[in-house]
Formats: sequence, structure tokens, C-alpha cells
Amino acid sequence: MSKKANTNSALHEKDGIPQPESINKSSVEKVMLRRRNQPSAKELIAGILAQDKVALSRAITLVESTNLDHLVKANEIINGCLPHANKSIRIGITGVPGVGKSTFIEAFGKHLTSMGKKVAVLAVDPSSTISHGSILGDKTRMEELVKDENAFIRPSASGDTLGGVARKTRETIILCEAAGFDTIIIETVGVGQSETAVHSMVDFFLLLKISGAGDELQGIKRGIMEMADTIVINKADGDNVAKAKLAKTEFNRALHLFPAKSSGWIPKVTTCSAFEKTGIDNVWKIISEYIELVKGNNYFDEKRQNQNQFWMMETINEQLKNHFYNHPEIITLLEQNKLDVASNKKTPFSAALELLSKYFK
Amino acid sequence: MSKKANTNSALHEKDGIPQPESINKSSVEKVMLRRRNQPSAKELIAGILAQDKVALSRAITLVESTNLDHLVKANEIINGCLPHANKSIRIGITGVPGVGKSTFIEAFGKHLTSMGKKVAVLAVDPSSTISHGSILGDKTRMEELVKDENAFIRPSASGDTLGGVARKTRETIILCEAAGFDTIIIETVGVGQSETAVHSMVDFFLLLKISGAGDELQGIKRGIMEMADTIVINKADGDNVAKAKLAKTEFNRALHLFPAKSSGWIPKVTTCSAFEKTGIDNVWKIISEYIELVKGNNYFDEKRQNQNQFWMMETINEQLKNHFYNHPEIITLLEQNKLDVASNKKTPFSAALELLSKYFK
Repeated sequence: MSKKANTNSALHEKDGIPQPESINKSSVEKVMLRRRNQPSAKELIAGILAQDKVALSRAITLVESTNLDHLVKANEIINGCLPHANKSIRIGITGVPGVGKSTFIEAFGKHLTSMGKKVAVLAVDPSSTISHGSILGDKTRMEELVKDENAFIRPSASGDTLGGVARKTRETIILCEAAGFDTIIIETVGVGQSETAVHSMVDFFLLLKISGAGDELQGIKRGIMEMADTIVINKADGDNVAKAKLAKTEFNRALHLFPAKSSGWIPKVTTCSAFEKTGIDNVWKIISEYIELVKGNNYFDEKRQNQNQFWMMETINEQLKNHFYNHPEIITLLEQNKLDVASNKKTPFSAALELLSKYFK
Repeated sequence: MSKKANTNSALHEKDGIPQPESINKSSVEKVMLRRRNQPSAKELIAGILAQDKVALSRAITLVESTNLDHLVKANEIINGCLPHANKSIRIGITGVPGVGKSTFIEAFGKHLTSMGKKVAVLAVDPSSTISHGSILGDKTRMEELVKDENAFIRPSASGDTLGGVARKTRETIILCEAAGFDTIIIETVGVGQSETAVHSMVDFFLLLKISGAGDELQGIKRGIMEMADTIVINKADGDNVAKAKLAKTEFNRALHLFPAKSSGWIPKVTTCSAFEKTGIDNVWKIISEYIELVKGNNYFDEKRQNQNQFWMMETINEQLKNHFYNHPEIITLLEQNKLDVASNKKTPFSAALELLSKYFK
């Protein structure tokens, strides 16, 4: 066929414009550069010990990662920081939404930095994955503290399980302590089991309240009031002062109904206004009194040791369950056995033994 | 040597009296007879289904045994009874010491048998091993009920763990139901975790109270009040009638603070005098109303199915832990790792992973 005939054919293709390369050279250069800039575990440890906040942030990001390489690196960093950690006071703060936790932490944190303390603020909120960081997520809520060079604010780690979030937070505490932060504040949203988790990783537990919220019963019921080392009634300002004083008396009475604490500490109730920045110094005075008492009677160290052992056992028990319930053979058998016990074909005990004998075989 | 010299020697032994045989023939006969009389699993199943209380008692003894042969036999009996079980109403009764649980159960049980019901009374008290059966141990406290041919009273199984006691009680429920008991009452002493265990094996949970005991806060705190389907204020007699009425109002108000139950049931408060046998009929009326509601909305069956699945999982989780913590290598390593995490040589997480990798290897 002639060239012309070919050009006119329906099968003819024009030459078109030249295609770009499938690899973007400038992107490759950027990625390579970033990788070269990725500091080693040793470099990050050195940075943390030199109180470099950027190194601290990067290390925490590794702790929070789900990437296995990152976790190996995170572990190396934690082990390097561990001998330099544990020298802080760890304070847990809880309270239902609306009591003014952010405002309180901002005022309290500023008070501490003004005394020359270095303050790290962390959070435990397993729901933050869904709600996209409901607490501490919006750092602008602590405008002044976030600008303070002696403060470090980090939102809650995300994670599916409270156990996972709690583990990441405990490891972050170690890193913050190694970076020279001497006061660690751990905020928790006032719902669910997160309060118990935070209580078991702090030295002092502060319950924030407002007067007339009518949630006294809730606090008692959920065992939160029993965990509190102090109850701080916030928003004691303006028309609220008298009401706050009344609430103080009532909470004091309620606290006396609980058995004595093994720390030997008698929980104290106080009022403050985070908005007007009044009564904040008294909160710190109460905490200092507590620390003096429990460092004197050795309860401080004992509690930390027990907490560490508790978390070791918790991790073991969680992992034992994970291993069992993710076993391929068990997954199949479990469903059938669930149906069998629901329909009373087997007793729960014999179904359990059947599954366990398969698992351990 | 002559015989005489021999007799006079210091080495001489007198013939002495004939020794008894080392086996006591009459004891052997008795044991053999008892073994021959030991009914087989099949015979016991037949006995239970024929509503023979002696067979029922013997089967429960096998369930409670720690002897492996007995447990195999017990399992056979339970499997034989299972298709005939689950047709009763299971009622949990709790209350702190002093509220008159025994007197109430006696009056309530007699009321039920007078209506033609067959009542089995069991108990969950893991402490009974130490206290030698603190509840239901002394059957004379239910003098009338114990003589009633339509009642069956069995003290708490003994055992080291609540899990063990609870398992035995749940299996005893199955046997009692197969023996034709249509109302199962499970008493628990008002302390510790036993109440939660009993709550998760019954259809209806009754909290017994007295007026002016000042333990309202305790009840709320321990979550018992939230579990209650009815609160019965006992000892509403003599001078106490007015106080009991007041307490009724107060408890009613307190109950309204709790979230609605998934059963759709609104918990009711009532008063009674077990001593004067007044108000007892009303307690049964409340339970009947509840049962009618939850059988209608299918909650009754759902709850039992969930309970069975819960106990299956509980057994599995307990056994997984037992297996791990009794592993010879783990026992040694665990102690060292506990010390290492207490002294901050390792993080709880890395110590846990180390132990787990040994275990799963």
C-alpha cells in the first residue's frame, strides 16, 4: 500500500506529543533528601537528651506508628531514654465535657512554667481516631501554653484499642521525661475506661468539676471520685462563687464516705477559676503536699513499680487473647461453638475446653 | 547352741501375739458395697429426670469434685441433662449482711411452693472455703423451706476462685432445671465480684435492702443498684414501716438517674417484711411482670444466649492465663521481668513481648 492510503486508513494513528517520563526526577530527589534527613535512633536519643523538641516529636511519631520498622526504631529510642526517665511528677486530669479542662490546663500549665517547671501535656482518648482528635487536637484551645517554650503539647495517639493508646502514651511519657520535662499532665476525656487507664499511669489524679452539674452520682457510680486525689471545682467566678463553695462542702462530705487511701493521703477539695486564673496556685500546693507525703512514706515508688508490673501483665493478657482469637482454626470453630452454647447444645465450659484443646494441640 | 541358751540370749524374740491382717476385711466389703452402689452417669441422669433429689445431690457432688474421674462423669451427666434444662426462671438475690436474706428467701420460697412451684436455692460465695460456708451453710436458717418437698437447698460450692465457683453453680443450675425445678434462686453475699458473677447467670436480679442502713452510696458506687431489676426493702414492719416507705421513694428517685435498661424494663422498688410475711406476693408479681415483658420482646432468650457466650469466653480467657502463668519457663522469667520493670530497666511492653516470644516459641 502507498503511504497516502495508509494515512487515510481508520487504523492510522497520529504521532502525538512526547510522553512525560513515568518517574518525576525532582520528586525522587526530594524523597531521597528526606530519607537522608531521617535521623537515626542514636541521633534522636541525643536530640531528646539535649531537650530538642523536634527530636522529641519525631520520636513520638515513631512510637505511634504502625510500621514495623518504625516500631523497632522506637523501641531502641525508648531503651536509650529509659535510664534518663522517671524523674517527673505525672498528673492525670479528668472531667466531663464542659468543665473547662483545656482552660484549666492552660492556666495550670502557665502557672507551672512561670515557676520554672517544664510541662508536657499528653492526652488519652481512644475515640480520637473517629472524632479526629476530640481532645487536645485543637491546640489553639491552649493558645498561650502552646507558644511557651517550656511547654510541650501532644494530642492523643490514635488507635483502635484503649490498650494500644495507653501503651503509646506511657512510652511517650518516658520520652518526655528524658527530654527534661519534669511535670507531665495527662488529660483524659471523662468517659469510659480511659480514666482507669490514665489513673494507672499517673502519680496524682485530679478530678475537675463544676458546681451544680448534677453529675455527682455519676462520679460516684463510675468510681472516678474514689480514684481522685483532689477534686477541683472550676468556674468559681462571678455568680458561681457561692455555689462552688457549697459544692466544695458537699464533695468533702461525700469523700469521707470512701475508705482511707493506702497512700495515707486524705483527698482535698478546692475551688478555682481557670478563666480568672484564681485558685490555680492552691491546686499546685495540694499536689506538692501529696508528693511530699508519698515520697516520704515510699508510696510514690511503690505505686510506680506496681503500675509497671500491672501494665506488663495487661500487655501479656491482651496478647494471649489476641493470639488465641486470631488463630485461623479457632476463628472458624469459635463461631460454631458460640452458636452451640447459645442454643444450649453445649455448656459454655465444655465448648471452651474443646476450643482450648484444639488450640494447645 | 542349745535351745535354752538361745532363749536366754539378748537376741531372743518372744513369739508375741498374732498380728492383725493389714487389710480390714469388713472395711473392704463396705467400700466394695459402696462402689457397687455408686450409680452410673446414666442412672443419675435417669434419677434426675425422674425428679429424684438424692440423684440430683449426688450429681452436684460430682460437679463440685476436683477428682478427674468425677468430672468426666459429671460432664456426661450435664450433657444428658442439657436438653431438659433451661425451662426455669433464674433469680439472683443479693444484699449486704444483716438485710435478712435467709429469712427473705425462706418466706419467698415458701410463697412460691405454695403456688405449686418447685424451687431450688443455690449460692455463690467463693469465700465459703475459708469461712466454712458462710451463706446457706447452715440450712437450719431456712427451717421450713428445707423440709418442703418442693424445695431443694444447696450451699455454695467451695473453690479457690470465683470463676471455679461460678462454673460449678451454672452447671448445678442445669441439673436442677432438668430435675424439674422451675424457679432457681441464687443467693450471693453482698461483697466483691460475686454479685457481678451472679448477675451474669440469672434472668432477674433482686437487690435486698433495709431502710436507714446508710449504704445507698455503697450500692451506687459498686454498680449493684444499676444491675438491680427490683429493689426490695425488707424489715418493713413495726416502727420501720414509715422509714421503709421513705426509703422506697428515695431509691425510686435514685433509680431514675440511671440510663434506661436494654430490656425495656423500668426497675421497681417495693417493701416487704420477710418476718411478718407481708409484701412477699408483690415481689413475685413484679418478677412475673418482668418475665412477661422480656419473653414478649425476646430479651429473655437473647440475654441467656449472651450469658452463655460470655461464660464461654470467660473460661477461655481464664485458661489462657493459667496456661501461660503456670508454664515452668515463664514462672522463672516472670519474676526477673517483674523486677526489671519495677526498677525501670525495661518498659512493661518490651518485658511482656520478651516473655510472650519465649512462650510461643
